[in-house]
Amino acid sequence: MMGLMQDWPLLIHRIIDHAAIQHGGRPVISRSVEGPMHRTTYAEVRARALRLAKRLAREGIRPGDRIATLAWNTWRHLEAWYGITGVGAVYHTVNPRLFDDQIVYIVNHAEDRVLFLDLTFVPLAERLAPRLTSIERYVVLTDAAHMPETSLRGAVAYEDWLAEADGDFAWTTVEENAAAGMCYTSGTTGMPKGVVYSHRSNVLHSMAALAPDMLGLSSRDVAMPVVPLFHANGWSFAFSAPMAGATLVLPGPKLDGPSAYEMLDANQVTITAAVPTVWLGLLQHLEATGATLPHLRRVVIGGSACPRAMTEKFRDRYDVEVMHAWGMTEMSPLGSVCSLKPEHMGVDAEGWLDVKARAGHAPFTVEMRITDDEGRDLPWDGTSFGRLKVRGPAVAAAYFKGEGGEILDETGFFDTGDVATIDSTGNMQVIDRSKDVIKSGGEWISSIELENLAVGHPDVAEAAVIGVAHPKWDERPLLVVVPKAGRSPSREGVLAHLEGRIAKWWMPDDVVVVEEIPHTATGKIQKTALRDRFRDYRLPGT
Amino acid sequence: MMGLMQDWPLLIHRIIDHAAIQHGGRPVISRSVEGPMHRTTYAEVRARALRLAKRLAREGIRPGDRIATLAWNTWRHLEAWYGITGVGAVYHTVNPRLFDDQIVYIVNHAEDRVLFLDLTFVPLAERLAPRLTSIERYVVLTDAAHMPETSLRGAVAYEDWLAEADGDFAWTTVEENAAAGMCYTSGTTGMPKGVVYSHRSNVLHSMAALAPDMLGLSSRDVAMPVVPLFHANGWSFAFSAPMAGATLVLPGPKLDGPSAYEMLDANQVTITAAVPTVWLGLLQHLEATGATLPHLRRVVIGGSACPRAMTEKFRDRYDVEVMHAWGMTEMSPLGSVCSLKPEHMGVDAEGWLDVKARAGHAPFTVEMRITDDEGRDLPWDGTSFGRLKVRGPAVAAAYFKGEGGEILDETGFFDTGDVATIDSTGNMQVIDRSKDVIKSGGEWISSIELENLAVGHPDVAEAAVIGVAHPKWDERPLLVVVPKAGRSPSREGVLAHLEGRIAKWWMPDDVVVVEEIPHTATGKIQKTALRDRFRDYRLPGT
Ligand SMILES: Nc1ncnc2c1ncn2[C@@H]1O[C@H](COP(=O)(O)OP(=O)(O)OP(=O)(O)O)[C@@H](O)[C@H]1O
Ligand SMILES: Nc1ncnc2c1ncn2[C@@H]1O[C@H](COP(=O)(O)OP(=O)(O)OP(=O)(O)O)[C@@H](O)[C@H]1O
Ligand SMILES: [Mg+2]
Ligand SMILES: [Mg+2]
Repeated sequence: MMGLMQDWPLLIHRIIDHAAIQHGGRPVISRSVEGPMHRTTYAEVRARALRLAKRLAREGIRPGDRIATLAWNTWRHLEAWYGITGVGAVYHTVNPRLFDDQIVYIVNHAEDRVLFLDLTFVPLAERLAPRLTSIERYVVLTDAAHMPETSLRGAVAYEDWLAEADGDFAWTTVEENAAAGMCYTSGTTGMPKGVVYSHRSNVLHSMAALAPDMLGLSSRDVAMPVVPLFHANGWSFAFSAPMAGATLVLPGPKLDGPSAYEMLDANQVTITAAVPTVWLGLLQHLEATGATLPHLRRVVIGGSACPRAMTEKFRDRYDVEVMHAWGMTEMSPLGSVCSLKPEHMGVDAEGWLDVKARAGHAPFTVEMRITDDEGRDLPWDGTSFGRLKVRGPAVAAAYFKGEGGEILDETGFFDTGDVATIDSTGNMQVIDRSKDVIKSGGEWISSIELENLAVGHPDVAEAAVIGVAHPKWDERPLLVVVPKAGRSPSREGVLAHLEGRIAKWWMPDDVVVVEEIPHTATGKIQKTALRDRFRDYRLPGT
Repeated sequence: MMGLMQDWPLLIHRIIDHAAIQHGGRPVISRSVEGPMHRTTYAEVRARALRLAKRLAREGIRPGDRIATLAWNTWRHLEAWYGITGVGAVYHTVNPRLFDDQIVYIVNHAEDRVLFLDLTFVPLAERLAPRLTSIERYVVLTDAAHMPETSLRGAVAYEDWLAEADGDFAWTTVEENAAAGMCYTSGTTGMPKGVVYSHRSNVLHSMAALAPDMLGLSSRDVAMPVVPLFHANGWSFAFSAPMAGATLVLPGPKLDGPSAYEMLDANQVTITAAVPTVWLGLLQHLEATGATLPHLRRVVIGGSACPRAMTEKFRDRYDVEVMHAWGMTEMSPLGSVCSLKPEHMGVDAEGWLDVKARAGHAPFTVEMRITDDEGRDLPWDGTSFGRLKVRGPAVAAAYFKGEGGEILDETGFFDTGDVATIDSTGNMQVIDRSKDVIKSGGEWISSIELENLAVGHPDVAEAAVIGVAHPKWDERPLLVVVPKAGRSPSREGVLAHLEGRIAKWWMPDDVVVVEEIPHTATGKIQKTALRDRFRDYRLPGT
């Protein structure tokens, strides 16, 4: 017996339709790439997205075709997502900070037909264009007045090109499981892998993200995703903010501390989101200027573990709650958010930081397990750690073109590649990536935990821990640190700082001071490069 | 090109699985039908639902079979929903307050095979059993100690019967569009019509209900649905509370003011929900005792229009925000919730009541239109009124067994039978049912608005307005009032109270004082009965 409810496929256009109807006048405020601030509304975003969809159809774009974007967070990028999906095509966000070879690889791999790009990236595109074999046309996200001379094939200013179509268009209807978007992983552990989102996965993911225990976005929120749309599906904001009817603030090309502050302050932002490094810049700016954040209530931090000191500073100096989150490109990306449960309500200030040091609990749409190498479930006791596996409607079942082969286990769970503990309240903590964890004498040492402690040392700006070969223990931890400007931390000083805070056998065998630690395109520590560099390092006493 | 995300059908068991895993220890507190308070947890509810599913399978229940419940809101009723859907069968909540003939009609119409019933309803079931031709077995929701002598076929105490199965069971997997639940409409305008929910519709509806602009349930909430599970799918609480991990408080058989207060107070309830009449009882109790509601933050009121005076009293005396809501059995049932949008943020105390007098805006999953009789869209200006039509994944496409024929228009919208205005902020207000609206000289008069104003008169306890035949104007309004105890409102006094508050031509032609106004099983005014009674009424001057 079937239900007798309406057939209403979960298509992305319904999100912008809803926003335009129920929250049509709500502002979408961007810092434009050209410089000035720009204001529009959800109703206008929808109107222009319809026009864009029509223009793409006239360009010969068909359902399933991929359209690349090399763009900052602006209203144009936002309407591009809705226009592209609105004609049944697939938005493919390309991270401009990737190495040239990686960009060439993924654009060709995705077989993108059109590339939308910001002015910022014209030189990059010109450099790579000869190798981008599938791109038929380059659309520069600007108007005629700002359009540069360029050799790019078919290059046109977006506003001119868009003006060639009117908005009289009906969204192209596709199946809800049809492809809607693509994002390649960050390439931290190897070559980026292509994840293909469906309309259904994006809609369900966004609905789950709205829940009060997750992002908890309401129409009264002013949301600023500092995290770029090209990072892990933009952490859902391009969908969840309009779905909630939240005011959207888009920081454009300027993600530095002063610029972020300017946007937060001028627009009375209530919730913002980015990786930890972005917030270092903001906090430095606040400290230097004595500025405060009276409107900001929550800052979502993920992509890497959020250091405890950051959570504490946001709370104690600025009365802002850090929402520590964990996610992956493969998960659309939300895997967990650390909002307090009733079990945590009695904790004191320190206990609260303990809770917030962990990455939180899963939304309804994410099932989580931790298992040992044989796939046996481990207890949720906060200390047992194992492979973190997930299942859900917004979790990848495979990579594009089958790269990496079968990625689900027999129970249909995806192995995240992260090693984690989960405590009795369901609060998960990533201990390490399985590729980064240090195996010493058969036991695991968490590089993330050592790093987070090391950056607590007053002279240390950044820290990375890698395993180095050891004749007796297989591997032992090596701590690599970047000093704060003008400081020179000593090996002994740094190790003394760790003492008492970790098990004796976790103590790094050595400390190396370096000028810079290599980073990936999303600002994560590039352990692969670091391991290469210290491959032949001889630890003391070996 | 298809997305490459996991296939994860939206099945109801995932809700209780999620609750048991992520919020396993969260309390589910019920007032039992036997009397004492009862405490359990989501983990236990799930364990017992698995046992129930296994027991039902052994009973010969197959996917698609209907199981009726005649039960109050308790943990047993809750686990019944999950056990029934967990074996692929269909829960069918029967409203015990319906007339005998209606109950017989819907149980036979649904072809229910098993009937779960509370002790309260054993006499009712015994009376009707000879006519309930499809019921094979009666399961009394109690334990051996409380099991009465009864003639009911195969009658067994739920706890004994459940104990015959262990919990070692895998949820039966069905398609997400398979039937999961049934609820018949309230029968306000005619014979109740059967609505058949699917797993998908219930899951999507519940996800949409969690959004901060809707119910906004979090794991930190303590939610008490006073609205019975047998009224309009229990307003989603059986699904949305566990999905959010909210503590659930179930009031059992006692819905009177003092009992509701006792539960609210003892369990520090933060959000509760029911039709307006229930809150009259609570407010009277609070006033009489001087008690307050320090923990309660929100009260969801719908099913009929919430009188302005009620919203005001909740706010001014108890610091509780009324969430005026509109819904229908056919909509799972949430159609709109009145949460404030940024557009409303500057309003004063009176303006706030104006906003809250309306039924709110739609969740992402509900598309709304108002049209004239020819299906042309009317403006959202707060005054134009027309047929309210809705579309969405949790809106009925048809009634069970095709009763009522085709219920969607050419655009796939369902005509709600309500007449409404929508203002520029998307805030909808039901003006009347199309069957109740009074057509005077070609213009419409809102019976709901007249009623809401009339109950503002100090001597009037309840009011109903119906149209009575008029030789010149086709129909004119007749106001029927029930006096407050010991008061005797006069025709002139009541009409004087309306003066200045309505357009002149809306003024009722007469006022009749009666001892009682007839109500439906969900406590709504039964206009059909009232119209029958006053069919031959002669208005003054005719
Ligand atoms: N809160 C967090 N704490 C610790 N690690 C996190 C957190 N959030 C995200 N991560 C890390 O980021 C990963 C997901 O990042 P992303 O999808 O951007 O690509 P990547 O894993 O860095 O790159 P690649 O998969 O190509 O190697 C997670 O698997 C996890 O290792
Ligand atoms: N906030 C509200 N304001 C005014 N009316 C409301 C409100 N909420 C619900 N209603 C009324 O209740 C109706 C839905 O009620 P329900 O599904 O319980 O059955 P019913 O319409 O009363 O009965 P039947 O359809 O059998 O005649 C709506 O169509 C509307 O008329
Ligand atoms: Mg990865
Ligand atoms: Mg109805």
